[in-house]
Amino acid sequence: MRCEVVAVGTELLLGQIVDTNSSWIGDRLASAGIDSFFQTKVGDNIERLTAALRQALARSDAVVVCGGLGPTQDDLTRSALARVMGVELVRDPDLVELIRAMFSSRNRRMPANNLAQADVPEGASIIEQTRGTAPGLICPVRWEGPDGEPVEKVLYAVPGVPYEMQDMLERAVLPDLRRRAGDTGAIVSRTLRTWGDSESGLAERLTPRIDELDRTGTATLAFLASGIEGIKVRVTAKAATEQEALATVEAEEAVLRDLLGDLVFGVDDETMEHAVVSLLGTAGHTLGVAESLTGGLIGARLTNVPGASRVFRGGIVSYASEVKFELLGVPEGPVVSAPAAEAMAVGARRVLGADVGLAVTGVAGPDWQDGERPGTVYVGLAFGDEVTSQLVVLPGDRERVRQFATISAVDLLRHRLLAEQRAG
Amino acid sequence: MRCEVVAVGTELLLGQIVDTNSSWIGDRLASAGIDSFFQTKVGDNIERLTAALRQALARSDAVVVCGGLGPTQDDLTRSALARVMGVELVRDPDLVELIRAMFSSRNRRMPANNLAQADVPEGASIIEQTRGTAPGLICPVRWEGPDGEPVEKVLYAVPGVPYEMQDMLERAVLPDLRRRAGDTGAIVSRTLRTWGDSESGLAERLTPRIDELDRTGTATLAFLASGIEGIKVRVTAKAATEQEALATVEAEEAVLRDLLGDLVFGVDDETMEHAVVSLLGTAGHTLGVAESLTGGLIGARLTNVPGASRVFRGGIVSYASEVKFELLGVPEGPVVSAPAAEAMAVGARRVLGADVGLAVTGVAGPDWQDGERPGTVYVGLAFGDEVTSQLVVLPGDRERVRQFATISAVDLLRHRLLAEQRAG
Repeated sequence: MRCEVVAVGTELLLGQIVDTNSSWIGDRLASAGIDSFFQTKVGDNIERLTAALRQALARSDAVVVCGGLGPTQDDLTRSALARVMGVELVRDPDLVELIRAMFSSRNRRMPANNLAQADVPEGASIIEQTRGTAPGLICPVRWEGPDGEPVEKVLYAVPGVPYEMQDMLERAVLPDLRRRAGDTGAIVSRTLRTWGDSESGLAERLTPRIDELDRTGTATLAFLASGIEGIKVRVTAKAATEQEALATVEAEEAVLRDLLGDLVFGVDDETMEHAVVSLLGTAGHTLGVAESLTGGLIGARLTNVPGASRVFRGGIVSYASEVKFELLGVPEGPVVSAPAAEAMAVGARRVLGADVGLAVTGVAGPDWQDGERPGTVYVGLAFGDEVTSQLVVLPGDRERVRQFATISAVDLLRHRLLAEQRAG
Repeated sequence: MRCEVVAVGTELLLGQIVDTNSSWIGDRLASAGIDSFFQTKVGDNIERLTAALRQALARSDAVVVCGGLGPTQDDLTRSALARVMGVELVRDPDLVELIRAMFSSRNRRMPANNLAQADVPEGASIIEQTRGTAPGLICPVRWEGPDGEPVEKVLYAVPGVPYEMQDMLERAVLPDLRRRAGDTGAIVSRTLRTWGDSESGLAERLTPRIDELDRTGTATLAFLASGIEGIKVRVTAKAATEQEALATVEAEEAVLRDLLGDLVFGVDDETMEHAVVSLLGTAGHTLGVAESLTGGLIGARLTNVPGASRVFRGGIVSYASEVKFELLGVPEGPVVSAPAAEAMAVGARRVLGADVGLAVTGVAGPDWQDGERPGTVYVGLAFGDEVTSQLVVLPGDRERVRQFATISAVDLLRHRLLAEQRAG
């Protein structure tokens, strides 16, 4: 089964919007075992859109068309689909009612052109909207096979708004595609998120397991490098039922967690900051941070988590050395150093009335500081009676050094909290 | 002149990397007055890559191929170009020398397959690398015109690494394309960056000017909405010489600055934080901030600017109310309020030993706080003898409210600094 993606919109070609939808769809298709060999961007032009759809159908069994379903004259996807199918657009009375009802429930006057969204190519079926106004479409197309025999191909139209598109893809497009592929089983994926080892390091740890899975075919593993979000390891299992596939994934997760240990900080959408906020909550600790080169990034990440206020007291951004000395009580001397990082952690805990203190000091660059090169970073931790620090040497430009310093600090705290949890 | 973009790499189709290169190229082509009607992603497969290139050449005069120029077996762009051109690959002795020299200057052993990067389709010319190892290529292709007559089209190959690609595109590809288009003049663009009005608001302010430019044809304006980076207004002028085009752009910039006033915070790559750090430096002020819902984002943005330490003393992330009361001296009471924001600004200035204090307090959501709905934000400013605050009501989810609160606060300070500068 081959499925292409066609993203529609002149703004995509002009670079005003980056087409992230095709990438997202490509990832989901791959997980479902469906090949996607070409992805095309085309502007809001009926001739070129129609040509792009025909071209894609000639090469593949199915096409997901993304965007161009809005109510304006620029939104040409419905007309292009009708042309490719060789049918007329007909106004669907149920959709008309739905759109009218939506506007009146919001007490808004409905512009007449909004009814264009109720136009459907004859023979198409509708993917209901749950998050916006434009319905999606499933359009079967009669096509000529390699020996002139008739074959059925299919066009799916989904909105360009990412969260509307994603919902329709998961709910309607992927199940329909898999049914057409004769793939009646279920597919379940889970992503383990790791921090602290390279992609090749993870591959080395997991090679025997990957070889075993290759032999048994019970599940597949894929690595996704995700920059400051770490490296993701995705487990995918196919089985006759959802329950069975889920059981396989869960068993595999347990095996991988044994092999990877504390490198795994979360699953699926769980970020590093979720992990740490949750560990702090479980342990009943409160946290205060002191930041130098990161300028507030540690606080900003931790407070991404709704409810962080239960454990996060606050932070001191001690960018000027005098703030380190006067407010945090760091002894005068070089501020890019282990003693400074430790004193900052102790100071943050005291000044902010927290019971754990985390601190980071270092050189973001581009210039050297205190005789230290850019990328030199000390993380300090005040945890109970223990005051420790760690030197990390980070690659990259100013922005990367700051981001990596942030996650390195948060990850150090995570490891300490895990150790405490284990010690009981 | 029509030019398509073909981005090469299986990782693009799988969604492991988002193809931002094509968007960037699309933007640059549009600025140069070159149409780009299709952009295609294709995997590391010689048959499909060759087919994609032929297809693109059939529809357009030129194609930029991005990626697949590395030294590994997956890097197939050179072979595909030779196929489409109907020629052989020949090893270029100068390139061999260059690649050898680069490895030996870094004291690294050169893997033999690196010499594949010296292979060039016969008849192609080389775009020198200034930032990496893979050279780019300009490949003329004989093609058949609509009436069977021979026409010359062109394929450009550039690396997939964005900063290598961008350099080659600006330095070699765009000038060559414009020469082929018979476009001998120069094009100069400049982007004015604005904050504080909507796209439709800006359009209204500029309508008479846009109408005038439409009549005179001296320059064109384009709007680019850029989320928390504000809205960009790009001026583009074409003229016989670079000098002349630049003079037109500069004259137009002056007209636009008159119309937009302080909405303009910078030009081209200048961010809001650059503007404020620079204004603080000129005025000889130092800044201390106090942040609540933004959790450190204001400090993190300001310290994005190298050299921020000259003006930025630091920040207090007073996430817990007690930190506001005890460290910053905010009077007990509702902390999402104008008096709290003002007291935070005064407290930040005092505690951090700065002469300007900026503070932000509010509700990021998803829950209400102190009887206030998510999006309710107070910005406080302590500036000389003046202590003021401003209520802003922001739309969107937690992440957007935090980001908009950050830029709203920094922008408020910018306006105060501009007023001071003007008062002399």
